[in-house]
Amino acid sequence: MDVIEAGFAAVSDGEMEAVSLIAKQGLRAEISSAGRGTKGDIDAVLKCGASTMSMIIPTSDLHIECKLRKTREQVLQTTQDCVQYAKDHGLKVDLLAEDATRSDFNYLVQVFQTAVNAGVDRVTPCDTVGILTPDSSFDFFTKLTNNIQVPIGVHCHNDFGMAVANTIAALGAGAQEAHATINGLGERAGNAALEEIAITLQSLYKQTINIKPQLLYSTSQLVSRLTGIHTQPNKAIVGENAFTHESGIHTQGILANPLTYEPIAPELVGCTRRIAPGKHSGSNAIRANLTNMGLNPNEEQFNDIMQRIKELGDKGKTIMDADVLAIAETVMGIEGDKPIQLAELTFVGGNKVTSTASVRLKVHGKDLWGSAIGVGPVDAAINAVKNAIVETEPITLEQYNVKAITGGTDAMVEVVVHMRKGNRTITAMGLREDIVKASMEAVITGMNVLKTDYNDKKPPTNP
Amino acid sequence: MDVIEAGFAAVSDGEMEAVSLIAKQGLRAEISSAGRGTKGDIDAVLKCGASTMSMIIPTSDLHIECKLRKTREQVLQTTQDCVQYAKDHGLKVDLLAEDATRSDFNYLVQVFQTAVNAGVDRVTPCDTVGILTPDSSFDFFTKLTNNIQVPIGVHCHNDFGMAVANTIAALGAGAQEAHATINGLGERAGNAALEEIAITLQSLYKQTINIKPQLLYSTSQLVSRLTGIHTQPNKAIVGENAFTHESGIHTQGILANPLTYEPIAPELVGCTRRIAPGKHSGSNAIRANLTNMGLNPNEEQFNDIMQRIKELGDKGKTIMDADVLAIAETVMGIEGDKPIQLAELTFVGGNKVTSTASVRLKVHGKDLWGSAIGVGPVDAAINAVKNAIVETEPITLEQYNVKAITGGTDAMVEVVVHMRKGNRTITAMGLREDIVKASMEAVITGMNVLKTDYNDKKPPTNP
Repeated sequence: MDVIEAGFAAVSDGEMEAVSLIAKQGLRAEISSAGRGTKGDIDAVLKCGASTMSMIIPTSDLHIECKLRKTREQVLQTTQDCVQYAKDHGLKVDLLAEDATRSDFNYLVQVFQTAVNAGVDRVTPCDTVGILTPDSSFDFFTKLTNNIQVPIGVHCHNDFGMAVANTIAALGAGAQEAHATINGLGERAGNAALEEIAITLQSLYKQTINIKPQLLYSTSQLVSRLTGIHTQPNKAIVGENAFTHESGIHTQGILANPLTYEPIAPELVGCTRRIAPGKHSGSNAIRANLTNMGLNPNEEQFNDIMQRIKELGDKGKTIMDADVLAIAETVMGIEGDKPIQLAELTFVGGNKVTSTASVRLKVHGKDLWGSAIGVGPVDAAINAVKNAIVETEPITLEQYNVKAITGGTDAMVEVVVHMRKGNRTITAMGLREDIVKASMEAVITGMNVLKTDYNDKKPPTNP
Repeated sequence: MDVIEAGFAAVSDGEMEAVSLIAKQGLRAEISSAGRGTKGDIDAVLKCGASTMSMIIPTSDLHIECKLRKTREQVLQTTQDCVQYAKDHGLKVDLLAEDATRSDFNYLVQVFQTAVNAGVDRVTPCDTVGILTPDSSFDFFTKLTNNIQVPIGVHCHNDFGMAVANTIAALGAGAQEAHATINGLGERAGNAALEEIAITLQSLYKQTINIKPQLLYSTSQLVSRLTGIHTQPNKAIVGENAFTHESGIHTQGILANPLTYEPIAPELVGCTRRIAPGKHSGSNAIRANLTNMGLNPNEEQFNDIMQRIKELGDKGKTIMDADVLAIAETVMGIEGDKPIQLAELTFVGGNKVTSTASVRLKVHGKDLWGSAIGVGPVDAAINAVKNAIVETEPITLEQYNVKAITGGTDAMVEVVVHMRKGNRTITAMGLREDIVKASMEAVITGMNVLKTDYNDKKPPTNP
């Protein structure tokens, strides 16, 4: 990054401290802190040690009158005074004109000109409610670059879903700095997404960008985790499905040549390709999937498998690797190859009771018992399974996702797990009203797909 | 909608049946079914009763050579034969040129011309891997409309986050039909989002559109629920936060005049405005929140409340209404106004045991017992609380969301509930490793915020 807007120093002590810490890291990026056009906010930026202030001053009559309860003249004076004050105290200043795109254009230029005269370093009109279109963005920034002599930035909101395109159009018209956020986070529908702008510039416009694109996916994941705001699966560049292929036409193409259905290689942004089984899957994808599971059905069996997968998909089910395996085994008559089955599960818990679970598993028809405690009933139940079976090649639970399908506490709960054995990862699902049972179903199904190698020598704990 | 592409009839029996059912509804929309340029796929469309076929034929050398393993000449012949065959059998035909934007332009025109000669009704170049930009989209469609005499459609993918802007640009260049999906669903990063295109056309371009915009939000929610693919909170138009305001500058403006920070009224798309408390909240927002809860702190107390909310936010916590209430009560010395407290909780369950829970609640210091069964331990525990307390004005649990914060089964589980009493809705959260405890925490906190009115006359069930 060239510039990091690290926070709004005047908001709180914690935010002040956070900006200070970032400013002290000695990063090559310029560190800026946001604030309003008030002496107090400028002082806060000075105190936090940022080199730059992103100074927010509204320029539309709506904002000036309804929010600030000031006049245009007063705002001009504020601009003059605040830029002057910040410059006098050694700050670099980027003037963010709030609601600039709904402002009287001549007045906006007047505000910017006042700031330039007071020594401002950059000016950035903000499309505060996201009303630009690529065309109007291009026109707006073209007119502005003809009128203003300092570098111009662009700050777009995504209310109509066009923040990225509007930002790119502004850059084409001469804007020199683009404001963007990881995953497009921000107020309401968010701001322009950094990863989309970066990859568009690099891949479609062949521009050199000053970031490491291969870290985009992991950075996106990190931000999702820390903020608790998840990206949707169909988010561009960094969404879970951005490089996932299901439709038959698509997977057939991808298997022949990934370029057919991928504008960029997933590795470019630190992601990996995934071919998902589904009712739209073509035969090539399902065959690749089965080969991975060590299964080689004959032609007739294969057609039957395809048929059943489509039927399952028609019922509205998301198809997991475990489903493909189960269908293939049934069709190919590999019966009983679900070595582990849950015969009995009991759990108890509460706020004065340690969560405890016991299980009886049928493993190749033999009873194995296990018991364990855990942080909650789900954890205890899964620990009990691990206690019952001593694996020789361990299976790890890499991801555990839980989702309530409808609204209430009696909703269907869907648990999806990603499990790994060696370098093979599979997905399995459990769907029950009871989260403990759904979790057990998912994990045991996953263990069966991965064909758990367990140590038969462990003496079964008979009760 | 003017046209509904209802499914790919040749994919499976279920998909065939689904398209048939939709075709039989007598909707005013034209019903189309997708298929490849093969006799089998055309026959499937004929069988399902759709009036139109969206006939997919690749036109880029990459797709023709790598995927189809054919020559350009063969594809021309296929186009001629398939359009002819479909037209001869009474179908309306929209020719979807796959990977059109990476095709040799002259060859693409040749394919379209062949289709026109064979009687095609519409042609739609597909930006299959989403590489258009608004500029190149405009140029591409301008050139195309100069060359083709039938109506032209546009079909954009969202790999670089510009599908909506590219679609709008194409319409500006003369395209007459836009392909779009609810929530932007589709392969990989999805297709152009219907709700974003519709509202952009209506609000920014002042076009009359043939849909009911006030149903967009509920339609989006319905599609999320049915597909299990959630929209991200910062999704334009229909995201959970699209009309949510947190930052102080923003909420101050919204409270003065919603136009300051909303390009369209949320009611336009059937949504509602929400002012979320948070560390960036200004004093106006928090004061409005407290007034809603019936609290009127004095100036000194209010400053203390603001301070503590910011401190909590600095710790990275998402601030719920319940947090604001708890802080305000502490500051204002309204101690003990958390009438309901969980003293004891025990639950038991399993695959051969009916989930059962008992609770002991301290309600204004008095012990109340309750017990209940449920579909799982969470449901049983919440039913037990309802059993212990007879509410005079019922509180309903409107939404129950659960999310694991990190990866494993021992992760922190965050439960967020939306609860309603009369016409007041509040949010409350529980955060524990144990989902049952987290759920109880959220629900009991919510009941306390809403000040449950319970019937004291119910004889407490003493054990």
